[in-house]
Amino acid sequence: MEALLPYIQFLEKELQAYAFPKKPENLYDPLRYFMQIGGKRIRPVLSFLGAELFGGQKEDALPIALSIEFFHNFSLIHDDIMDEAPLRRGHETVHQKWNTNIAILSGDVLLVHAYQALSKSEQIAQLLPVFNQTAIEVCEGQQMDMDFEQRSDVQIAEYIEMIRLKTSVLLGCALKMGALQAGASEEDALLLYEFGQELGIAFQIQDDLLDLFADPEKFGKQVGGDVIANKKTLLYILAEGLVSHTDSMILKELVHETDLTYKVRKTQEIYERIGARFACEQAMEQHYQQAMKALAQIQVPQERKQTLIYLADALMVREY
Amino acid sequence: MEALLPYIQFLEKELQAYAFPKKPENLYDPLRYFMQIGGKRIRPVLSFLGAELFGGQKEDALPIALSIEFFHNFSLIHDDIMDEAPLRRGHETVHQKWNTNIAILSGDVLLVHAYQALSKSEQIAQLLPVFNQTAIEVCEGQQMDMDFEQRSDVQIAEYIEMIRLKTSVLLGCALKMGALQAGASEEDALLLYEFGQELGIAFQIQDDLLDLFADPEKFGKQVGGDVIANKKTLLYILAEGLVSHTDSMILKELVHETDLTYKVRKTQEIYERIGARFACEQAMEQHYQQAMKALAQIQVPQERKQTLIYLADALMVREY
Repeated sequence: MEALLPYIQFLEKELQAYAFPKKPENLYDPLRYFMQIGGKRIRPVLSFLGAELFGGQKEDALPIALSIEFFHNFSLIHDDIMDEAPLRRGHETVHQKWNTNIAILSGDVLLVHAYQALSKSEQIAQLLPVFNQTAIEVCEGQQMDMDFEQRSDVQIAEYIEMIRLKTSVLLGCALKMGALQAGASEEDALLLYEFGQELGIAFQIQDDLLDLFADPEKFGKQVGGDVIANKKTLLYILAEGLVSHTDSMILKELVHETDLTYKVRKTQEIYERIGARFACEQAMEQHYQQAMKALAQIQVPQERKQTLIYLADALMVREY
Repeated sequence: MEALLPYIQFLEKELQAYAFPKKPENLYDPLRYFMQIGGKRIRPVLSFLGAELFGGQKEDALPIALSIEFFHNFSLIHDDIMDEAPLRRGHETVHQKWNTNIAILSGDVLLVHAYQALSKSEQIAQLLPVFNQTAIEVCEGQQMDMDFEQRSDVQIAEYIEMIRLKTSVLLGCALKMGALQAGASEEDALLLYEFGQELGIAFQIQDDLLDLFADPEKFGKQVGGDVIANKKTLLYILAEGLVSHTDSMILKELVHETDLTYKVRKTQEIYERIGARFACEQAMEQHYQQAMKALAQIQVPQERKQTLIYLADALMVREY
């Protein structure tokens, strides 16, 4: 995503310059470690692009970009505890490398640093309620996700709502705060928020699809990871509504299948045959189109939208 | 503390009226539960008193009071996880009643609600950095406390710094934000912050003292709880510097003593004899006096300070 490089480099430089205190080491070393193992930095870049869309400067959107990135990493540190995940971005998670208590507390202080970064914006009074609402929604989405693991009756709309809250609203928030910082109207800011939110949903659905149907040669990790872990994805929920009695029995048996290659291949075959894959692709496309429609309605010259269109396109893998 | 009742009742009414969303239940039920099992509500009352000291109304300080109380309860929910505490205020802790993941996440969202409450203040741009700094310091203090459990060389000054950060700055912050809300000068607001901070330190030191030397008839819980748990309190650290070789040997043996009545009585006797109790009382008195000195310097009519003086007096148990 070459067009985004200047933004990412600018952010990385500022992240480097953001000096967490030295002590207590057990509080801040985990943050230095975690912030530095990277990530795509898509969210803070969205803040820059949101500002530029309305004629603002990325420098002025820096408090927003930092706060978004700190918040995102706070939520990852705490989610990793809850998911008992040993690895994140190929590196040990904080609770794994240190311990759970340190991961809880360093996550907490990172959330406060998100607010501290945001407080440097001159539009703080306008931005804070936007940020708060999103932060609350992200927590709600994470709770829904945990609740779903205990349930067998999750509906499609609930699942979409969960991914909207857990991951997509933060994209919308990043864009909207950038826009407001640059003086966008409430109406345009809301359209941009919708663009980010719908794009985020489409991206998450694509995640489900790629996990099972990606080309193994191009996919960075094992294809079928979700199926192997018996995870309830959108594909799984869609399949539940489409499957025949016979296939349903087969899928139930596959849960305990130990031949993982067979398990994945057979699930692929069924999901494809009963139309779960197609339904999932349709849902993804629908949210993508809604994103583009919202973007089209924003009252700024078309050429200003190019980077966002480029970003949206780059996020969606059209062939797999 | 009768003079504080109108403030507490006002706060309780507003806490009742503050409607956490109904869903997800596993996120918000723990908060409704935890907020309702009470606590003394000293901190939010300080926000009201800070505002009134400078001619403000408690109603205008409500966003501050709520945010302080939410923050305090967020930190308790997370601290209870870290301390593996089964009880808080005589009731089950959140992680005990639900589970650790739910306690992490509901604590997180309560911290965001603290910011959301604060955002309702018209002085948000001025208050937010004050709140952030304190929130960061509270996390740092909690980390120091956890670190101290693994160390055997904690110095007196470090210990005082730990309790200052972990518990006292929040009292200062509550007062200072109330004062700023009512238009106090930076200088007066800082003096009031110092008053709260020093009073908080004195109160925490008193906590250590009461735990070992309280009159069992008047003390709500078991006398000597800290000694039984071999907790490093200020008394313990002071004793380390005062103790003779022989007494030091006795104290070391007491760590493993199974006759708890004897363990507590013998520790009392040694701490008293070597002057650790006296040194601790002196430290407490010194911080109390510093608090009163800061309050005295604030440029408002003396009669306005009465409730704060009354509160400070009520917090300090003179006889035990």
